Parts: sequence; structure tokens; C-alpha cells
Amino acid sequence: MFPKNTWYVACTPDEIDGKPLGRQICGEKIVFFRGPDGEVAGLEDFCPHRGAPLSLGFVREGQLVCGYHGLAMGANGRCAGMPAQRVGGFPAVRKFPVVERHGFVWVWTGDEALADPALIPHLEWAENPAWAYGGGLYHIACDYRLMIDNLMDLTHETYVHASSIGQPEIEEAPPVTKVEGDMVVTSRFMENIMPPPFWAAALRGNGLADDVPCDRWQICRFTPPSHVMIEVGVAHAGKGGYDADPKHKASSIVVDFITPETETSIWYFWGMARNFKPEDAELTATIREGQGKIFGEDLEMLEAQQRNLLANPQRRILNLNIDAGGVQSRKVIDRVLKAEAEQAAQRAQTSVAA
Amino acid sequence: MFPKNTWYVACTPDEIDGKPLGRQICGEKIVFFRGPDGEVAGLEDFCPHRGAPLSLGFVREGQLVCGYHGLAMGANGRCAGMPAQRVGGFPAVRKFPVVERHGFVWVWTGDEALADPALIPHLEWAENPAWAYGGGLYHIACDYRLMIDNLMDLTHETYVHASSIGQPEIEEAPPVTKVEGDMVVTSRFMENIMPPPFWAAALRGNGLADDVPCDRWQICRFTPPSHVMIEVGVAHAGKGGYDADPKHKASSIVVDFITPETETSIWYFWGMARNFKPEDAELTATIREGQGKIFGEDLEMLEAQQRNLLANPQRRILNLNIDAGGVQSRKVIDRVLKAEAEQAAQRAQTSVAA
Amino acid sequence: MFPKNTWYVACTPDEIDGKPLGRQICGEKIVFFRGPDGEVAGLEDFCPHRGAPLSLGFVREGQLVCGYHGLAMGANGRCAGMPAQRVGGFPAVRKFPVVERHGFVWVWTGDEALADPALIPHLEWAENPAWAYGGGLYHIACDYRLMIDNLMDLTHETYVHASSIGQPEIEEAPPVTKVEGDMVVTSRFMENIMPPPFWAAALRGNGLADDVPCDRWQICRFTPPSHVMIEVGVAHAGKGGYDADPKHKASSIVVDFITPETETSIWYFWGMARNFKPEDAELTATIREGQGKIFGEDLEMLEAQQRNLLANPQRRILNLNIDAGGVQSRKVIDRVLKAEAEQAAQRAQTSVAA
Repeated sequence: MFPKNTWYVACTPDEIDGKPLGRQICGEKIVFFRGPDGEVAGLEDFCPHRGAPLSLGFVREGQLVCGYHGLAMGANGRCAGMPAQRVGGFPAVRKFPVVERHGFVWVWTGDEALADPALIPHLEWAENPAWAYGGGLYHIACDYRLMIDNLMDLTHETYVHASSIGQPEIEEAPPVTKVEGDMVVTSRFMENIMPPPFWAAALRGNGLADDVPCDRWQICRFTPPSHVMIEVGVAHAGKGGYDADPKHKASSIVVDFITPETETSIWYFWGMARNFKPEDAELTATIREGQGKIFGEDLEMLEAQQRNLLANPQRRILNLNIDAGGVQSRKVIDRVLKAEAEQAAQRAQTSVAA
Repeated sequence: MFPKNTWYVACTPDEIDGKPLGRQICGEKIVFFRGPDGEVAGLEDFCPHRGAPLSLGFVREGQLVCGYHGLAMGANGRCAGMPAQRVGGFPAVRKFPVVERHGFVWVWTGDEALADPALIPHLEWAENPAWAYGGGLYHIACDYRLMIDNLMDLTHETYVHASSIGQPEIEEAPPVTKVEGDMVVTSRFMENIMPPPFWAAALRGNGLADDVPCDRWQICRFTPPSHVMIEVGVAHAGKGGYDADPKHKASSIVVDFITPETETSIWYFWGMARNFKPEDAELTATIREGQGKIFGEDLEMLEAQQRNLLANPQRRILNLNIDAGGVQSRKVIDRVLKAEAEQAAQRAQTSVAA
Repeated sequence: MFPKNTWYVACTPDEIDGKPLGRQICGEKIVFFRGPDGEVAGLEDFCPHRGAPLSLGFVREGQLVCGYHGLAMGANGRCAGMPAQRVGGFPAVRKFPVVERHGFVWVWTGDEALADPALIPHLEWAENPAWAYGGGLYHIACDYRLMIDNLMDLTHETYVHASSIGQPEIEEAPPVTKVEGDMVVTSRFMENIMPPPFWAAALRGNGLADDVPCDRWQICRFTPPSHVMIEVGVAHAGKGGYDADPKHKASSIVVDFITPETETSIWYFWGMARNFKPEDAELTATIREGQGKIFGEDLEMLEAQQRNLLANPQRRILNLNIDAGGVQSRKVIDRVLKAEAEQAAQRAQTSVAA
């Protein structure tokens, strides 16, 4: 169960550079490619001629040419031509609303009539040149909600990421969770602690001493359907913590877009946005590599957890205070799902009445 | 759904050279081996003693010895002996009619009483020393009819085999399809075109200029259950095309025997027969290597098409004029299947009456 | 169908050396680790917090710490602590009776109230310093009873192990099978034969001539649920055979503990115990390597047999005189299963009456 009338990150621009990309999202097999004006299109990945996946074909002047017999599909989902054929009566394939924004391609797999690009979240770090962003993509065989749980409860860092960002003090600082409309915020502040390896390196990279006590913070913000932005950072102790002057701290935003592939698998777009040395491409690459390694550590655990839950459907799990972020996020998701179901029922009724 | 009362190619003689071969055909797990007089036998691949696959055993003086406990199976499917055992009462295993002919081993998985070796097609190129043959075997996870469609519509060459035998002129020459009894013939003639790489090489190999306009032809002949023979070739333009004198052309027969393994997988025996330089084994090897590479390109497309069709059972596909060869072939197959079903019903009735 | 109220070998001590081990046994996913006093514990491999497998965690002072969020599980299956949490009300996980004995860890997956350590078989070779033992573990995708059949009918040696311990004389010596209570004994004695390669090497290793006629014996003893101990050996011919003085023979005990993982897969603990040169570790290693190679030959056959039986559920297999050992063993197992079912029914009734 995932919301359908919403925007998910489908891919990054480099994945459709000069070639189509086939990707299953929310159970739909979709092919993405750039149309004649460079705008991205998302179509059902099924050639109406013989059923071959269109994603095995190629892009020619903004049309997607099937790699089997050459049927050319327009960005609108209608057949644009085929050698020696009149294609006027050919059936169309489903066209998915797609928008390229903030360095990502977003797709809407629900009711097309409701697809309003204004619903795509504003991402300051993606538009402001004072920020730099680097990230990657992992495929993980787990329910998207297990990934949200993971990100909304960072006590796992001490166990899963012991050698990089974990430290015992995380567990000792109780998290505070608040719900603001559809946003869930879980915050944790640690004071006067030594920075763990990842943050020590960040301090050094920022020209700051790495062997002195620091204040550390983690502010996780969930918004539906499954976006989690986490403000993280450290400041030399006594300089104001989260509110310290930039010259005393190293901070960034952990970016997480979680796109369901099926009920039990996801496309996980992870990254980090920072507002220091934004022009330093080498630093971006270094951070990206470190983060990729850390986030890869979650993968094995999440897939094992998913298998264990599937094998024990009768078992209930605990929702502790540290799980409040995930619990509240699931409540928001449930509300969204309920609203979607009601909306669908209403539309069905209206359509009968008409 | 595949015809059962018919001969399929099961294997080539090299596959049973001194050892048994286990292969599933039309859903039946069969072991092939050479009996006491060198004739090929096909038995149910199941040792009546403990159920081990007989194909894991070995051949000893024309008997197939189970590799687990030494039960020796005769070519007739009856147990011929077992150390320290009286085997008179041992149950037999099913024996499949098998014939070795034209360089292939043929098997009949349907009603044994109907298995007439005279129904095996005559293959002139396999018997006449003026011809040479080279070929190979691919396992492909697709319905055998998708492979037939592929071979009866060669417009795919321009897309799937762009670098070897494809060229835009194929699409511009509309194919003509005729049905002659159970045979479906789809022909395409292209005039005054430049030969694509594969045929340029064939012309050179034949001592002919490869940089001059040519006439090219493709004559696909389907016969049930799933054999497709394709006459292909090029002649220097203006010399009579298909009917040109051999000294002006390079031509051959593409040989395709498609044997169902299951409803969605096949053993694909492909090859090429030629009637020039038949004694040139090196040329045979070169052609075989080139053809193997080209035919391997179809594999990925066919398996992706099959997966897409299975995932979209509600979708209908288009039957265009270029698909006429496949469409007519499927009609012949449907007729054969219907006749088989009627025959089975009739036999059941007769048996009740008796 | 496997007995549950019984002890199975779960693992060897080296597998839980400083770390937990996750292993499925009789359909139960279990994690094994050493508790505070070094005694082995077996718990349901499911963290009550979020369902992660506990086996992905680590052992800290005799507690098993979940690798996801740090819940610490006691050897008794009750939560012993979790950072910043009161764990008093946390649900427990199932605890399986576990005993370490004879160099193995034994587990009981049935009714805990019936788990009597005295039911673990006495293994003289494991306790007496005059004996040495070496062994290994294979995972095989077959019903545990197919492995018992294999071990209780050694005529397969001539086919499956032709180059090491097989010889035609095995088949010529009819086996004798006796049932003594729950024990099934199948014996085979071969007189005045040349020793096969494995035994020739054993004679040499024992300082005895290897090129002279010998008497050979195999005495297979099955006891439920699935243990098979096989006395094997050769003596120089005419010296008394099985009863010959040790200076004339080479002999050992083949040890087989077969632990069901699922209905169609097993953990196969194999090994060899010998009472000559017990202090010679190099000899132990050499024998272990040779045996591992030989027993690996069974693996392919057993898995192929299992697949063939599953694909042919309607086929019956033969029970010959050579199969008597397996047949009788299965009868004992059926008796055990029936008793278990009756016991369970009785307890259910008693519990209702109470």
C-alpha cells in the first residue's frame, strides 16, 4: 500500500542521457526518455505492436523507437510512425505525468487529472547556488515504510554504522517527535561529545579542530509520501550548537527520496546537500563516496528484516519512544491512503450519477 | 499449447557421443542415448528403482546404467539387469519414438501409435553432398510461437541485427505472404541495394565484388509444428536476382528447428546450409560463428518480450501486414492443435465403445 | 514430516566462536550463541523490537545484541536491556532447549517440556581419548529420508564413489538387515577381495600391506530421528575379518547426523571417527579431506533425485532387498511420528479436561 496520487522521484537526468530507461515504479513498468524539446516523458513500457519493452529501443529525434520492429512512439504515448505502416489506428500506451525539477525526474502514477506539478516539494538546496549536492541510488528489497522507520530513528547508527557516524551518545539523548500537519519532525541534540569519525573528517574538511568536544544535532523531517530530509551537523561545544555561526560548525542535509517499486522493494535515492564549499567538486565526490558506503550498510539489515517479517506474519513489533518518528510517519501515510480511497470512491459515485 | 503428435528435433548426435543426455521436451523429461546397435533411444528420465535421473548415469554396451545403484535400462525402456537382482517384475519407463535423420535426433512426445518416421520432413541440404551445414543450439525463455513470429517477419533485422544483416531497405520492401496447405511462405525481394556487412562478406568469400548494387531476397517457409527454413541471398544487380546464375550470387538456407521445452521456453536449433564450397570446413566455422552472434541478439529481445506479455495478460498486440507470416503460421498451428484434440476425443470414444 | 520431540545436531562449536549463528532447523529460524557462562543458547531469530534477525547482531558479555538498534537479548529469551529503554514489558522470544555434548550443539525444536538431555545418544568415540574425529557440514536440497536411504544402502558406492570406496564386490555381497527396537542394522561382509583405493591408503597409513586380499565390512546403524553410524573397515584376509586383531586391520566409524532444515533440505553433518593414531592431526585432516570429496559426490545425485521425485509425484519407487535398511528406518520414523501425534492429541485432551 503506497500513495499513488503523489510525486515520486523516478530517476536522475544522467540515467536518461541519450537513451531510454525502463523502471518499475509503484508496480507500473515505465519507460522514461527525453522528447523532442528535451522534456522528459514517461510511458507504459510496452510496445503496442508485439509487446516488446520499449526501453530496449532507442531515442531518435525525441521519439522512442522500439528495438524490435521500429515502431516510433511519441512522447504523448501515441504511435508517431512505423516504417511502411499507417499508424493512425494504432492503440496508444499509457502516459504518466512527469516533471523534471530540482535535479530529479518526478513521476505521478495515480490519477492523471490530479497531477499538479505545484505539489512537488520546494527544495532550497537544489536551487540555491550556495548549496552543492551529491547522491546515488540503491535498490533495496523492502517495504518503503521500513526505510522510513530507519531514517526516522537514528539510534541505529550506533549499531549499523558503528565505524562512521555511530556513537553511544546518540542513544543517551532521547529524541523528540512532533507532528506539524503532514510533516513529522524527530529531533535529537547531543551536547559536549566527541565527534565520530565522519564528523571529525567534516570538521577537518571545514578547517576546524576535530579533537575538541562538540554539540551534535539530527533533525529528521518526513513529508508524504516518503521523503525524509535530515539536518545533521556538529558545532564546537559552547558556540550555540545548531544555531552556531557557520565558522564554528560543519553541517548538511541528508536527502532521502524513497520510491516504491513493488510492495516489498524500493528505489532509494540518497544524497547529501551542503552549504559550504559548494564549488568543490572533489569534496562532493568524497562525501558521496563516504555516504554511499554508510548507506550501503543499511541495505543488508533492511532486506533481512523484510524477509523476517514476511516469514513471521503473526508477530507484532514494538513501537518504542525511539520509533515515534516512524510511527507518526505511518499515521500520516495511512491518512493519505484513506483520503485517496475516499476520493476514488467519490469520483466513482460522481461518474455513476453523471 | 504445442502439437504433440509430431516430430521435434531433440538434439544433435554430438550431444549423445558416448554419454546420455537429459533434456526436457514438450514438458517431458527425457534421456537420450545410443542403444546396442548404435540407434538412438529416448526414455523417461526416471530410474524406476529410486527415482534418480537416468541421465546422470552412463552407457555400457547399449544399456543405460543408473549412476546411483546400477540398474541397467534397455533401449526399450525395460530394465535389463541390476547387480544381484531379478528384474523381471520391475516396472518399465516410458519409451519415446526416436529417429536419427538428416544429422539430427528427432523425438515424438505424443501418441506412440501415430509416430510415423515418414512424417519427418525431407531436407535436401542435409543429404546432398553439394551442401554443407553448420549450426548451434540456444535455450530461450519464450513461447515457441514468439520465435516463429520473429523468423517469419524479418523487418526486425534492421533493429535487432543493425550491424550485420539489417538495412533500411528491408522495411521498404513489403513482404508477400502465401499459405500453401500447411506451409506458410513469406517472401521479400529488394532490388538494386548495397549489401549489408554479412552479405558483403559472403560475396567476397564467394570471389565476387562486394561494393556494387545487388538484388537481395528472403523467402521464409514455415511448416508445422515449428520448422522455419529461410532462403536468403544476394546477386549482383541485373543478373536475375533469386534466379541468377550461381556465379553472380551468394545464397544459403537459414535453418530453424524450434523445440518447446515448456510453454514458455524452447530449444532453438539454428544453422545455415549452403551449396557453395561445401568442403570448406573453415568457411563453415566462420559462418557458424557469425550466425551464432547474430542469432544471439534475438535472445534478449525474445525473453524480454515474453516477460512483458506475461506481465500484461490483458493487452492485445497488433497483427500488421508484416506479421502476416507469423499470423498465418499460428493459424496452421491452431488447426493442427484442433485436429489433435479431435483425434484424441475420437480415440477416447472408440475405446469406450470397444 | 520429521520428528520434532528429539535432539538434532544444530552446529559445531567453531560455528559460534565469538559470534552468533543463524540457522533454520525443522522449519524454525534459530540463532545460536554462547551465554554468560559459556553455555550455548538457541533463540527464535527475531528481534521483538522491529523484527530484525538477531543473528545479524553480536555477543556482548553473554547477551545477544541486536545489530539494528541494540536490544540485548538474554540467553533465556527475555530482553535483558536496551539503551534508554525499560524492557520489563518487552515480549520474550521462543527459547529452544540446547545442549552441547560430544563436540556438537544439539537442539530440540519440539515440546520443551519433553526435552530430556539424557535422550542424546552416547557416543563413545567422542569421549574416549583413544579415538579421533574429523568431519564437516554440507547443505543438501533433499528430504532427510533420501539421505538415510543413501547411507543405509551402500551399493551406491560402486556407482557414485567408483574411484575411491566403490568396488563390484559390494553388490555381490547381499546385505542383511535387522531391526533391534528402534535401531536398524544393515550389514555387509565381503571376503577375500582387493581393497579399493581409499582402503588401500588406509592400510598403508596403518603400516599394513595394501596389495593383498582383504576381508571388508560395512555395518550401518540407524537410530531415530536420523543418525547413521557406520562401522567400516578392512582386515588382511584370514585374520578374523571384523573381529581381527587391530594389528591386521584398518577400520573406523562413519558418522552421519542429518538435520532437517525444511521438508526438502538438510544440514548434513558428516565425519569419521577412528581409534588408531588418534593424536595424528595431520592424518585427521587428510582423512577429512578425502571423505569430504567422496561425500560431496552424493550431493548432486541426491538433489537431482529429489527434483525428479517432486516432478513425478504419481510415481512409486521400488523397495528392493538392498533398500531394506532405508525401508526399515522409515518404518521406525513413521512409528516415532505416530507416537508424537498421539502424544500431542493426548496432551491437548488433558489440557481441555483441566
